[in-house]
Amino acid sequence: MLRTDTVRNILSWYEGETPGLKANLSRLLMHGRLAGTGRLVILPVDQGFEHGPARSFAPNPVAYDPHYLYELAIESKVSGYAAPLGLLEQGADTFAGEVPLILKLNSGNSLVSGNDQALTGKVEDAMRLGCVGVGFTIYPGSESSYEMLEELRELSLQAKSRGLMTVVWSYPRGGKVTKDGETGLDIIAYAAHMAALMGATIIKVKLPSDHIDLDAAKSTYEKYPLETSNPAERVKHIMQSAFNGKRLVVFSGGGHKNETELLDEVRAIRNGGGNGSIIGRNSFQRSKSEAIKLLNDVMDVYA
Amino acid sequence: MLRTDTVRNILSWYEGETPGLKANLSRLLMHGRLAGTGRLVILPVDQGFEHGPARSFAPNPVAYDPHYLYELAIESKVSGYAAPLGLLEQGADTFAGEVPLILKLNSGNSLVSGNDQALTGKVEDAMRLGCVGVGFTIYPGSESSYEMLEELRELSLQAKSRGLMTVVWSYPRGGKVTKDGETGLDIIAYAAHMAALMGATIIKVKLPSDHIDLDAAKSTYEKYPLETSNPAERVKHIMQSAFNGKRLVVFSGGGHKNETELLDEVRAIRNGGGNGSIIGRNSFQRSKSEAIKLLNDVMDVYA
Amino acid sequence: MLRTDTVRNILSWYEGETPGLKANLSRLLMHGRLAGTGRLVILPVDQGFEHGPARSFAPNPVAYDPHYLYELAIESKVSGYAAPLGLLEQGADTFAGEVPLILKLNSGNSLVSGNDQALTGKVEDAMRLGCVGVGFTIYPGSESSYEMLEELRELSLQAKSRGLMTVVWSYPRGGKVTKDGETGLDIIAYAAHMAALMGATIIKVKLPSDHIDLDAAKSTYEKYPLETSNPAERVKHIMQSAFNGKRLVVFSGGGHKNETELLDEVRAIRNGGGNGSIIGRNSFQRSKSEAIKLLNDVMDVYA
Amino acid sequence: MLRTDTVRNILSWYEGETPGLKANLSRLLMHGRLAGTGRLVILPVDQGFEHGPARSFAPNPVAYDPHYLYELAIESKVSGYAAPLGLLEQGADTFAGEVPLILKLNSGNSLVSGNDQALTGKVEDAMRLGCVGVGFTIYPGSESSYEMLEELRELSLQAKSRGLMTVVWSYPRGGKVTKDGETGLDIIAYAAHMAALMGATIIKVKLPSDHIDLDAAKSTYEKYPLETSNPAERVKHIMQSAFNGKRLVVFSGGGHKNETELLDEVRAIRNGGGNGSIIGRNSFQRSKSEAIKLLNDVMDVYA
Amino acid sequence: MLRTDTVRNILSWYEGETPGLKANLSRLLMHGRLAGTGRLVILPVDQGFEHGPARSFAPNPVAYDPHYLYELAIESKVSGYAAPLGLLEQGADTFAGEVPLILKLNSGNSLVSGNDQALTGKVEDAMRLGCVGVGFTIYPGSESSYEMLEELRELSLQAKSRGLMTVVWSYPRGGKVTKDGETGLDIIAYAAHMAALMGATIIKVKLPSDHIDLDAAKSTYEKYPLETSNPAERVKHIMQSAFNGKRLVVFSGGGHKNETELLDEVRAIRNGGGNGSIIGRNSFQRSKSEAIKLLNDVMDVYA
Repeated sequence: MLRTDTVRNILSWYEGETPGLKANLSRLLMHGRLAGTGRLVILPVDQGFEHGPARSFAPNPVAYDPHYLYELAIESKVSGYAAPLGLLEQGADTFAGEVPLILKLNSGNSLVSGNDQALTGKVEDAMRLGCVGVGFTIYPGSESSYEMLEELRELSLQAKSRGLMTVVWSYPRGGKVTKDGETGLDIIAYAAHMAALMGATIIKVKLPSDHIDLDAAKSTYEKYPLETSNPAERVKHIMQSAFNGKRLVVFSGGGHKNETELLDEVRAIRNGGGNGSIIGRNSFQRSKSEAIKLLNDVMDVYA
Repeated sequence: MLRTDTVRNILSWYEGETPGLKANLSRLLMHGRLAGTGRLVILPVDQGFEHGPARSFAPNPVAYDPHYLYELAIESKVSGYAAPLGLLEQGADTFAGEVPLILKLNSGNSLVSGNDQALTGKVEDAMRLGCVGVGFTIYPGSESSYEMLEELRELSLQAKSRGLMTVVWSYPRGGKVTKDGETGLDIIAYAAHMAALMGATIIKVKLPSDHIDLDAAKSTYEKYPLETSNPAERVKHIMQSAFNGKRLVVFSGGGHKNETELLDEVRAIRNGGGNGSIIGRNSFQRSKSEAIKLLNDVMDVYA
Repeated sequence: MLRTDTVRNILSWYEGETPGLKANLSRLLMHGRLAGTGRLVILPVDQGFEHGPARSFAPNPVAYDPHYLYELAIESKVSGYAAPLGLLEQGADTFAGEVPLILKLNSGNSLVSGNDQALTGKVEDAMRLGCVGVGFTIYPGSESSYEMLEELRELSLQAKSRGLMTVVWSYPRGGKVTKDGETGLDIIAYAAHMAALMGATIIKVKLPSDHIDLDAAKSTYEKYPLETSNPAERVKHIMQSAFNGKRLVVFSGGGHKNETELLDEVRAIRNGGGNGSIIGRNSFQRSKSEAIKLLNDVMDVYA
Repeated sequence: MLRTDTVRNILSWYEGETPGLKANLSRLLMHGRLAGTGRLVILPVDQGFEHGPARSFAPNPVAYDPHYLYELAIESKVSGYAAPLGLLEQGADTFAGEVPLILKLNSGNSLVSGNDQALTGKVEDAMRLGCVGVGFTIYPGSESSYEMLEELRELSLQAKSRGLMTVVWSYPRGGKVTKDGETGLDIIAYAAHMAALMGATIIKVKLPSDHIDLDAAKSTYEKYPLETSNPAERVKHIMQSAFNGKRLVVFSGGGHKNETELLDEVRAIRNGGGNGSIIGRNSFQRSKSEAIKLLNDVMDVYA
Repeated sequence: MLRTDTVRNILSWYEGETPGLKANLSRLLMHGRLAGTGRLVILPVDQGFEHGPARSFAPNPVAYDPHYLYELAIESKVSGYAAPLGLLEQGADTFAGEVPLILKLNSGNSLVSGNDQALTGKVEDAMRLGCVGVGFTIYPGSESSYEMLEELRELSLQAKSRGLMTVVWSYPRGGKVTKDGETGLDIIAYAAHMAALMGATIIKVKLPSDHIDLDAAKSTYEKYPLETSNPAERVKHIMQSAFNGKRLVVFSGGGHKNETELLDEVRAIRNGGGNGSIIGRNSFQRSKSEAIKLLNDVMDVYA
């Protein structure tokens, strides 16, 4: 399939980047069911680190095997597969080149408290495993946030200068951010903007609620009102905050209680101009056939 | 336009620097409406990091688009454009060489408390984006101040040895500095002097009030009185503190309530021998035509 | 002895690694009594650091001499010998090539409190001493855990790029882990999974009890029940958590009170699909002939 | 003027150093009015950092201009001029080679509390500015003292290996040192000895009082009494503590209330075998002619 | 004098080391009165750092002069001289090659509290001064102990790879170690063992008392009793803990009240198989002739 105009246009936004990075971004955008559409569905598997193996894989025990996760990503024809080091290593050779890979460079776990993550992978690892990019989580607001931004800046320069994209999970928490604020519209917009300012190629945020969290921001949102009750309008504001839509933004979460609600959220993302979804537990915690069906339903919306 | 004697004289002050740095300083001083005058008006856009996207761009939503900010800087003929990494990247190729660029290397945000900033850009980034210089904020007085000075020293040597100017935002806060003291005359003079001692090519401070903050300094200001009620005399003291006027100093703030007061402040800066203004929100938060008009009114004063 | 299909199969799991690392892993798996079986018994001697010399060696004073420990490892035909720097240095030349060596890179001691270890060896040391791999302890849950993970990541890349295996002692403690939880089934499974995600070649954990420690995990273990009263089933769950058995896992501890119980535990490890045992004090604190007899009884189970 | 035997003898004390460093030390000792005498008077200007510009320069406003300070150092024929980065840069080319320069590598300021300084210059800066040496302050006793010693050790090796001298400002404070102890005889002796042990080429301490501060030292000073009421004898003890006089030591302070007392102190330094004085505020805070007169009166004593 | 079999045997223990390091160890063992005996008496002078100049040198003021200390080391024919940077520099050229030198790389001082030391020398310094080795203090048990171990590991690899020996002062304090425990038999044995595990070439500990400090160790010492009332048996246990006597251990302290008791202690060291003594204040705080006499009396015991 030849590169589409849509993708060509997206690449034009990344004018500050090297041809190598654009080639890898193009690989991601031209892969799988959504190839050429400018939309992305990514399979992330970092729950093992975050919640432990049983809570992640007991519902569908074949997923304990890293090869299964590769197969799911390949057979479902999602755009890419993002995971920490060990998971990518165990399959990197068998499935070399079959699906775009994103190495997650930092990870948290639920044995410790606090809003921080450990560096668990290196840009060199992403190179040797043939990844198209690296992933990194920041917690804007947390007591570790400046340090995380600085780590991102270092890793980002390393990655970009080697032609690797950066995917930034921007999850505000701590500091002046309340619990509700973690998915507040103003906070998510801020989180997306901050990731864009840091030079992220792709930004990953949670689907925002209609809550406005920061007192300092309330007057602005009152003076320049948005139709905050409409999820698509909220997505639109996030895209606006991502350089007026000139950065790719993918979404997760959203509080859906079933598949119907999930697909409603996906439609809101599409209608608001969002670039796609990251779908983890909803895919690998059900049987492969069910997962493929759900992922295809989602991709149907975006296609 | 040939280099003027005024600019030639300014370059002579930077006798410790390389020809590469002087070339970049000359590019800044010979660009735009104020070319050759030794005065500067710079467009800074770091509010997105500092206050979030809506508070920065909702009043004039086209400014969500980084290209708009480049266009504003170019069309208004200001001397230069200063912004964090993401904003400069998104436009660096389209507008290559059309306006002198300053990459801001550190940034704070309003989700966390405390007087510190994160390193969010690198000297290598400034090189690849074709900048004439780098910007860096220090908070003299704060609990992070010594660390910030040390970061500045490292980045400064890196930048200068590659021919890049350093623009130092010197904003005292914390420590022995009271809230009023942040714009106190003695404190701003100290802040400007400290930036000069650190080797800053251009110093950015707030327009000082007539408040004297440090007890230890009061007897000096009583013994050697200044006409502190006169804003131009206050600017003059700041210039004196910047190596007797041999370092370029630009000003922001000043507490103006409308355009008339803003232009009064600009006249005080000019009359006191200051080198110009940094004008952010007053420009990008109004329509392009209004912004260009205001910037030209300001530059009329300096021209 | 030619490489067996069992070993060939194990090597195939490490598809992300260099031929150099696989060669060293093969050396370990093809050495000693258990050569070719895919099972391992390793002699570790880090008790001197952990508990001091008398508590370690007074019961069998010839063991104060590092040469004795080499001889024990060689004559008993265990798979490998793991120890800190000084112990390996004192014998490295005399016994060069006679037994696969693993240099332990960090160590704690019982003069200080807290859950941390000091870096006491370097990858360069492992190279010059002819080791097949390096060992590293992490304490998931502890206040130092993120730092330890980051140290592991650095050392791991250094080691692997030089063809050295990494053996990760994953010992949860502190944070949200209770005292009982340190050997809890969910916690040990998490610990093994985390080591696998970090890229460990061989994982070392304690034999788990049937205790479930994390509240957040209890519902999962209730919904997807395991036969937790059966030690072999518990081992099986650990192996499942180690990439569905595609990472080598060796066990220690288990609370046995005598040799009979120890051998019962070994049978449980074998029956659950575990890859072997690490046996320290039970070997070097008795006479050489008794130690060799015990080690051979253990290896009989695995052979 | 040919090198004198006195200087030749002094150089012989620095037997561990490179010819490059000895050449720079010789340049300092063979410059100005005191050339060849083995005595030194140095003009230091770090008050701008320490106390701010007005408290430093308002009494003699021409001193706001860095060129003035160079001229003062040159015309008064003192041995050398020591200042932080910015001050040396602004004049380095105009006055290249006219006076030996010492770049102060760290600085404190009075906006923050605590006994520490920030690194504000680098050895590379000293090289490019043509300095003969670098200056560094340590605060023995303070909570930062070990870190400051370690910074000194790093910078010292860098400087010396490039032929630059090190001048160590050794100012005890904090820890077990009382306020009176900061100039106590035992403490200053300790401070001078510590600087010598760190490898300082020239040691800068305050003129000691007759106070003995550390309880642990009192019995020693009682058992081996010094004529502590005689300032020259106190200086002699400091010189003794500086490798029996084989390290150059210069003094500041002393609590003089007028010029007569200042010259008395200088005579005590000379009579006790001290190598000279550092005279800052007493010189640049009065008119140039008065300053030159005072500096010459001081040098008359040493000549 | 040709290398003796005793020395040849000692060198054979250091089988993990380079020929360069063994050459330097041989130089130390073949120097002075005890050449060839496998015993060592070393002159250490770090009291100036630890206690200040007067408490160190006032009893014998000629010792303020670093040359005196070199002369004492040379004329008394001790095995080597250990001191911090400044002391070795001042004499390194004059006495080049006349006595084996050990550069102490870290030092504490009595102006600050706490159990830590500052890095005050570098391996590069030891190289340029022609030393045979470097010295480093660790405080096992202290809150800085893991950091000190890590510094030792870095410096040790640097030193050894350049052929320099490491002499480790292992002085337990803080943490679980009581005041009495600092010289407790179990603690000193642990300290010696830890230094050996860190790869120390020569271990320096205090002569142990018969106190057993750690509760966890008491049962071991009861079950496997030593004749703890006999100082020579205590030394023997320390040697046992130092790889069964295959690491060189030298002793200091011991609580002697006069020369007779000192020599008794030396006999205990000799009889227990210890390798020698470090004798500082007892030598340089008396006149040179008395010091030489005492050192010779000590060496008579070991010869």
